[in-house]
Amino acid sequence: MRWARVGGRFAVIEDEHVLPVEGSPFGDGYRSTGERLRLTDTELQPPVLPPTFYAVGLNYADHIVQAKQRGMAAAKLPARPEVGYRANSALIGHGQPVVKPADCTGRFEAEAELVAVIGRPLRRCSRDEARAGIFGWTIGNDVSARDWQHSDRTLWRAKNSDTFKPMGPWITTDVDPLQSETTVSVDDEPVARFKTGAMIFDPYDYLVEISRYITLVPGDVLWMGTDAVVPMEVGTTLSVAISGVGTLSNPIVLGTASNPIVLEEES
Amino acid sequence: MRWARVGGRFAVIEDEHVLPVEGSPFGDGYRSTGERLRLTDTELQPPVLPPTFYAVGLNYADHIVQAKQRGMAAAKLPARPEVGYRANSALIGHGQPVVKPADCTGRFEAEAELVAVIGRPLRRCSRDEARAGIFGWTIGNDVSARDWQHSDRTLWRAKNSDTFKPMGPWITTDVDPLQSETTVSVDDEPVARFKTGAMIFDPYDYLVEISRYITLVPGDVLWMGTDAVVPMEVGTTLSVAISGVGTLSNPIVLGTASNPIVLEEES
Repeated sequence: MRWARVGGRFAVIEDEHVLPVEGSPFGDGYRSTGERLRLTDTELQPPVLPPTFYAVGLNYADHIVQAKQRGMAAAKLPARPEVGYRANSALIGHGQPVVKPADCTGRFEAEAELVAVIGRPLRRCSRDEARAGIFGWTIGNDVSARDWQHSDRTLWRAKNSDTFKPMGPWITTDVDPLQSETTVSVDDEPVARFKTGAMIFDPYDYLVEISRYITLVPGDVLWMGTDAVVPMEVGTTLSVAISGVGTLSNPIVLGTASNPIVLEEES
Repeated sequence: MRWARVGGRFAVIEDEHVLPVEGSPFGDGYRSTGERLRLTDTELQPPVLPPTFYAVGLNYADHIVQAKQRGMAAAKLPARPEVGYRANSALIGHGQPVVKPADCTGRFEAEAELVAVIGRPLRRCSRDEARAGIFGWTIGNDVSARDWQHSDRTLWRAKNSDTFKPMGPWITTDVDPLQSETTVSVDDEPVARFKTGAMIFDPYDYLVEISRYITLVPGDVLWMGTDAVVPMEVGTTLSVAISGVGTLSNPIVLGTASNPIVLEEES
């Protein structure tokens, strides 16, 4: 089953159609609205707005080697599954443009990530409970502005500027994405490929560890890190495909000046 | 005006009574439900569940000196207002217990903070627009487990374990808290006091800077950092009062073992 979100409502994807529902796949149930939209005519929103937005950092051995070569001195193999966070404010859906801020210098890069979507409350869960607690899987692009990542005290604008977190196109429930392959393409030309499941710690490891201290709830998302860092050029479209899950595509456009507007008038 | 949240609904506080409403002070309006509860009988929830939960780190000169003395080598005066994040999963309301995890060693401390609650979308705002964009003010306790803060790659469990983010008791709209005084008490005994407004960067500085890259929306919260770090002892109640805003009090209890439960049965 595939779940999307359109116009603020959840929707089931059936073949080439979108069927909005009342209610939520995470809540007390849902019912059909009878509407039936063509997928090609429909703007998809991020498939869920997570109560908490978890994101794994370095989680593929190759990515860590790359990060080290590129001057990220602190890059080393994680000894434990320690999670971080991203901000809902940065989320956009499939097809929506990623806006590169006008004053963003240095490397501007895509990180292609598998995303686990939580379906049940999890607290002090076992690996089996973690596995059963996942509702489904989607795709994220952890867009990163490296100059800001290196210069700032936090990741606030490096990874959380408006439009920096494309997620979608939908949540797929019937797949084991640890057997999948992730392909990153620029304008439909494949530029990187990796085994989605070649993680240092898998989603279940993370959920067991997080839930020792934190209650996960339905709709929470866990972005799993990447093994492929790909430059994002304005004027191109960046796509992340995970076999069995779907393809998340976003065009890249240039923003206008990000400097604060100095108002002349009194207020 | 004072706004709280009870049983999942927003509510107006009038004297010693709580008046739940339908709707939201941040949305398309609200109307009275006619209900009238006694404040002393009512469990208050966090007064808002923020779409994005922003938190300032070091923002008072004295706090930075203290942090440095306590071995936080990286502590230095921030040159720019760079924000971080906390997780909604950790929020609790006034009166609810802070649970200290059983395996939490080292210093376990309160950080008394002023919280700005956003009332309007803000993007590339001026200082005046930032000021006008604040709906009201509440209080936060940025509970921190220092051993984890120092040992972990992120602040995930050091500052975001369940119950580590008390916020409340309500949002006060008619106050200039930069003229207020913050008082921290243990079992009603004042132990620390500071000028709430003695910040390095004030809330308007932060909103101008954040909104250069990020759109803030109604209900977002911005925790402003602290000038008083106070040990939290199990069995006591920690209170943060900000004059003109209110008092946030939470008892501290000891949790049970946080280790994952190893299930014996097949699943």
